[in-house]
Amino acid sequence: MLDIKNTAADAPFVDAAELHAMMDEVSTFGGGPGGAMTRLTLSEEDRAARDWFAAFIKREGLKLEIDVIGNMFGLLDWAGPDAPVVMTGSHLDSQPNGGRFDGAYGVVAACAAVLALKRHVAATGIKPKTNIVVVNWTNEEGARFQPSLLGSGVYTGEIDLAFALARTDGDGVSVGEALDMIGYRHESAPPLPAAYIELHIEGSDKLEQAGLRFAAFQRFWGATKFRLAFLGRQAHTGPTPMAERRDALLGAAYLIADLKTIADEAGVDLHTSVGRLEVYPNSPNVVPAEAVCFIELRSGSAEVLAKAETDMNAAVELAAAKAGVGFEIRAVDRRRAGPMDPGLVRLAQETAKTIGQETLLLDTIGGHDAVSMAAVCPSIVIAVPCVGGVMHHPTEFTSEPDRELGVIILAGMLWRFCTDGNILEQR
Amino acid sequence: MLDIKNTAADAPFVDAAELHAMMDEVSTFGGGPGGAMTRLTLSEEDRAARDWFAAFIKREGLKLEIDVIGNMFGLLDWAGPDAPVVMTGSHLDSQPNGGRFDGAYGVVAACAAVLALKRHVAATGIKPKTNIVVVNWTNEEGARFQPSLLGSGVYTGEIDLAFALARTDGDGVSVGEALDMIGYRHESAPPLPAAYIELHIEGSDKLEQAGLRFAAFQRFWGATKFRLAFLGRQAHTGPTPMAERRDALLGAAYLIADLKTIADEAGVDLHTSVGRLEVYPNSPNVVPAEAVCFIELRSGSAEVLAKAETDMNAAVELAAAKAGVGFEIRAVDRRRAGPMDPGLVRLAQETAKTIGQETLLLDTIGGHDAVSMAAVCPSIVIAVPCVGGVMHHPTEFTSEPDRELGVIILAGMLWRFCTDGNILEQR
Repeated sequence: MLDIKNTAADAPFVDAAELHAMMDEVSTFGGGPGGAMTRLTLSEEDRAARDWFAAFIKREGLKLEIDVIGNMFGLLDWAGPDAPVVMTGSHLDSQPNGGRFDGAYGVVAACAAVLALKRHVAATGIKPKTNIVVVNWTNEEGARFQPSLLGSGVYTGEIDLAFALARTDGDGVSVGEALDMIGYRHESAPPLPAAYIELHIEGSDKLEQAGLRFAAFQRFWGATKFRLAFLGRQAHTGPTPMAERRDALLGAAYLIADLKTIADEAGVDLHTSVGRLEVYPNSPNVVPAEAVCFIELRSGSAEVLAKAETDMNAAVELAAAKAGVGFEIRAVDRRRAGPMDPGLVRLAQETAKTIGQETLLLDTIGGHDAVSMAAVCPSIVIAVPCVGGVMHHPTEFTSEPDRELGVIILAGMLWRFCTDGNILEQR
Repeated sequence: MLDIKNTAADAPFVDAAELHAMMDEVSTFGGGPGGAMTRLTLSEEDRAARDWFAAFIKREGLKLEIDVIGNMFGLLDWAGPDAPVVMTGSHLDSQPNGGRFDGAYGVVAACAAVLALKRHVAATGIKPKTNIVVVNWTNEEGARFQPSLLGSGVYTGEIDLAFALARTDGDGVSVGEALDMIGYRHESAPPLPAAYIELHIEGSDKLEQAGLRFAAFQRFWGATKFRLAFLGRQAHTGPTPMAERRDALLGAAYLIADLKTIADEAGVDLHTSVGRLEVYPNSPNVVPAEAVCFIELRSGSAEVLAKAETDMNAAVELAAAKAGVGFEIRAVDRRRAGPMDPGLVRLAQETAKTIGQETLLLDTIGGHDAVSMAAVCPSIVIAVPCVGGVMHHPTEFTSEPDRELGVIILAGMLWRFCTDGNILEQR
């Protein structure tokens, strides 16, 4: 990859060895055989990774702040108190038996970019016009605690703090208790930045298929999630005449089939799923009294998502009527679809171009902390390939050259803010 | 109900207070609010109920035997070693959140009948010609372990002991381990009886509809039970394109809907159900990799049952193809349809008539241990009403007068064997 390094004469120099060493170091916290990573948020493994990040922040002379939900910030305050701030980072938590790059790469990349920027300032003597904050968000994954994007959601005000602290894991431990156990509940947070840039692995194989190495997410999909219970009547599957049965599972079956049809009719812009189904009492010879469907509707288009919800409601009514059962909606969670910041998309494209890289414009379907941040400040996710599109699995992998490429572009984007101030206001 | 008591001058006197006290006592083991009963087979609650039954057997001077699968027998050996034996009883296990009378009433009724017979012998000085065995069968319900009728199936030789002991519950605990945990694995069992009489609550509302209070089941339905797994591919419900998903739960949904259609087309002679569905990994944002359907097909007609199985196999193929998933049949359990013993049906009718009760002749659709026993000895299920036909539900209820009526007829039938020996051979 040396061919693309510093082809733009004034770009900060990214030290590949330094980057890979940090990636290896952070992978020891929760790392298992075959590339496996289990670093559930606020676990002991997460604490170790957080301590590592805090040590980096202090060693490099950044100001460490930790907020009420455990989000960690490191402020490089070199442009003065009135200068704009650009934030970059991601999350150190992982899925159980997940991979090493999802999230952690974005935090390590932020650190590597800061080192590159500092070297560049020392070498050129240029006075930066923008301060930088590196960040590690709490519970992006939503694996140990639900919902996901919890830390960034509290930071942006979208999620109520008391609600967030009261979420419990499978053992009944709350977020608040888990924060206290590892000593990561404090009260200090920086104000909203002028821009938020998150570097991540792609999570699908569209870059590979396009033969490209760099992507910017220009749009994020919305998601509407329902917990919907069909309510039947418990009875013996033997003697109870078919006409008298009120089978909650039958209602769920009709809906699951119809949700697939709704997706088929909407085309590739809509994803639907029922990933979890709770049947009660779930005994082979008892007509189910209750079937709780965990439904997801996802789309990049607010209109498609709204229509899907309307279609789903009609399908629920129909399914309940056909099965002769009732239903109730137990929970609804709506995450809007929307655009990432167009100015940041252009900045990503321009920066990639200076090192000869074309930018693939994609949608992000899974959640990212940048989706939380997009509600309150210009935000973007930029991405490098992961082999075969595999994410949330031990074989998740991004090559060293691609890891370097991502940090070079990230550092380049940050440097533009350092030299020109808040370029988004100037466009 | 005093009007019908002892209207036949030589009938054993059933003590209603004694009967109801025993029913109340046994209902404390696993009983919950609103009539709920959760006494899963071989659980701690079941152990407590078993201990109660064992204490009754010992207190009344019966010989306690417990066999290799935990079936409990109490022998009233008052007619000598060469006399015929009539067995009566049912099962103490219940469905999760089921009712108090299904099974337990039959065991309590057997105890109450034995007390009535003993009093009658003491009062009249008649020397009985038949010995009596009271019985509690293991895992009639099939709720915790499948298949149902496990204990009676092992006793009759229809189910292999090693197979039965190796069945596991949802937590991976085997029948053998569960037996050892509660100390109910022994090696003693009585030989096959000359007749088996099981008193049960009806489980449907045909008695109510006919305005009658007593039924004999003259035929039992057959059942074909499948454990069928649809096999998909685990993936993220967010980014995975709909066309690439292999959703095992979708396959199950198609099948569940089609099974209802198969029943609709067959008419009242066929019952179909999926009462239990196991989904893996059952996480809201993961496409299900596996969905295991516990399917039941039931009919009184062997032809209807065979056609239903053929139709189901076609529906499985279609559901798997539509969902793009595979499938495998993990277990099949076939129980043939057949007649109960005509001599016992007549005895039930005659005995009921002595107290002015007409006998409604019904089919039993649900399995009963008497269906297992019918393969090896003359057997019958006699029944009293349950309100609204409700069974396997906390509101399952049989009135005190009807409970008394059932025991009076049961005791009367047993008394005929005591006075006349094996009346079935004499007919």
